[in-house]
Amino acid sequence: VKVARELMVSIDAMGGDAGPSMVVSALVRSAQRHPSVKYILHGDETELGELLHKRRFKLGLHLGQRITVRHAPTRVAMNEKPSYALRRRRDSSMWRAIESVKTGEAEAVVSAGNTGALMAMSMYQLGLIDGITRPAIATVWPTQRGQAVVLDCGANIECDAEQLVDFAVMGEAFARAVLGLPRPRVGLLNVGSEELKGHDAVRGAAQILRSANLPMEFCGFIEGNHIAEGVVDVAVTDGFTGNITLKTVEGTAKLIAGYLKAALRRSFLSRLGAVLASGALMALKRKLDPRAAGGGLFLGLNGVVVKSHGGTDALGFAYAIDTAIDMALGGINKSIVADRAGVSPGMATP
Amino acid sequence: VKVARELMVSIDAMGGDAGPSMVVSALVRSAQRHPSVKYILHGDETELGELLHKRRFKLGLHLGQRITVRHAPTRVAMNEKPSYALRRRRDSSMWRAIESVKTGEAEAVVSAGNTGALMAMSMYQLGLIDGITRPAIATVWPTQRGQAVVLDCGANIECDAEQLVDFAVMGEAFARAVLGLPRPRVGLLNVGSEELKGHDAVRGAAQILRSANLPMEFCGFIEGNHIAEGVVDVAVTDGFTGNITLKTVEGTAKLIAGYLKAALRRSFLSRLGAVLASGALMALKRKLDPRAAGGGLFLGLNGVVVKSHGGTDALGFAYAIDTAIDMALGGINKSIVADRAGVSPGMATP
Repeated sequence: VKVARELMVSIDAMGGDAGPSMVVSALVRSAQRHPSVKYILHGDETELGELLHKRRFKLGLHLGQRITVRHAPTRVAMNEKPSYALRRRRDSSMWRAIESVKTGEAEAVVSAGNTGALMAMSMYQLGLIDGITRPAIATVWPTQRGQAVVLDCGANIECDAEQLVDFAVMGEAFARAVLGLPRPRVGLLNVGSEELKGHDAVRGAAQILRSANLPMEFCGFIEGNHIAEGVVDVAVTDGFTGNITLKTVEGTAKLIAGYLKAALRRSFLSRLGAVLASGALMALKRKLDPRAAGGGLFLGLNGVVVKSHGGTDALGFAYAIDTAIDMALGGINKSIVADRAGVSPGMATP
Repeated sequence: VKVARELMVSIDAMGGDAGPSMVVSALVRSAQRHPSVKYILHGDETELGELLHKRRFKLGLHLGQRITVRHAPTRVAMNEKPSYALRRRRDSSMWRAIESVKTGEAEAVVSAGNTGALMAMSMYQLGLIDGITRPAIATVWPTQRGQAVVLDCGANIECDAEQLVDFAVMGEAFARAVLGLPRPRVGLLNVGSEELKGHDAVRGAAQILRSANLPMEFCGFIEGNHIAEGVVDVAVTDGFTGNITLKTVEGTAKLIAGYLKAALRRSFLSRLGAVLASGALMALKRKLDPRAAGGGLFLGLNGVVVKSHGGTDALGFAYAIDTAIDMALGGINKSIVADRAGVSPGMATP
């Protein structure tokens, strides 16, 4: 059970393909759901003021008071190189949004902007949690039994055993603190479940995790199909494999949805059938909606950072804000710090 | 257009979970479709004789004459270690089935048995095509525009640039010789499409492929979603990423099919709708049927080797036999030899 304490969330209003109007709509949705959360919107002051003014009746007096607009003169473009953005965009809405977390004013930041720039700026400004050597991007997937956290989805192209162990700890901490699972089942993605399978990094990580003292059930190696089957709550892999797998699965889900649509349009009978089953088909659509996943969750940083999909709409961005709120209220980073100590007890700080 | 010349296919009748009865049923299906193909069935003589005898009316005189049974006293178990099978199972149906290709009696071998053992025995008996340093397992996936070859799906856990180039050549040769595409579009799976993305191996492979003289259109780096979108005909990656991606996608397809079934069963209206749309839903099911993909195609060996899924049925195994026939008739290995020379022209043999 999460306590609905006061919480400040910082938002990059200028990121994403859809722009600030989408972000403000998402903010209104989130604010209605979370009466004790306050928001700082970073971006073009005039534009944001107008967008909020338009929604003043929807917002009402109380809700309006929970939103602060903070001006940022520039924005990070979607195609800018992270290294360039890091040097040249310190007056951008993205930089400033992260800065609110750095100064302690806010606990979480949400952006639909350039992923690489958001990671680089977050690393630079917030730094890593003690004991974690690399941050990871986690995503939440639907499974036959509920959902699973998959990481790393693209922050680290090459990973050694220690980093995979860090990801396992961060994923497990997320599953406990945010998904509310007391003892998450954690597996390492591999080409087979036998102990001898895979390369040095996965085998080394398995060895460390088998002897670690962590509040999780380590399931050893899992294969790709085990994610959807719900065999684990946390699936750990390197960022190269995780990113390619995530995007391939997204592509496959779209392909199947397209096949289904085309098949149902084929004949009069099938069109009629689709109309009768439209309730069920809409439920399926919602279940497969990638927006409900809450975006890419940056783990391992001193602060909560959530990346909403660049092409998202207000619904998806609102889910991303909600996820950031859940992560902050769940105390994700305290969990990571506490659990990281369980891997090498000698290194635990009091 | 493929010439329907005479062809001998060797079959491991004892592999797979379902056993020889499934294999014989598959053989009958394939034999009816391919009047100029002959088959050698390796396995338990008595059992196979009885299975064929039961189907004697279906087979008829001519078809029966095209099938030879060859006795093999043992079989490779599904959970046996490849190294053990390689040393101890030289009297198995799998070993003997591959041997028929080695001796030149057959051009292709099909098995639903232990993948690792089939690869180890094929490597040992058939050897690699000149110029290819590692074999690869290719699979054919449905896409929005048709189909795509994805490799490596698990033969090689770690790959360097040269090996990825080999895979690109083999995939392209398969797409030309078997799928009939004159100039296949080939992409390297990566975490982004920009030139600087990824690790040394993919960047190195891209550099070699950009300057190679090959009958293909090299598309550079692609992301996971580009496979289903049909952006390429051939998607190349290492066996670790390929295997995990393949299995994750299979799991996702099953998950979505399960969601759809459950959603359509929810109410009277949706059940009625599903009945009316049953033709369309069956068409969708066929489209997503993993059996239609023809199994795992072992490329790079001196001979055609096709691995049908261990849990397959007669329909899936028959598709695997058909794929092996297509690969042999298409001259896949001649294409690989010819195209491999295009990568480093100085090494081309006259």
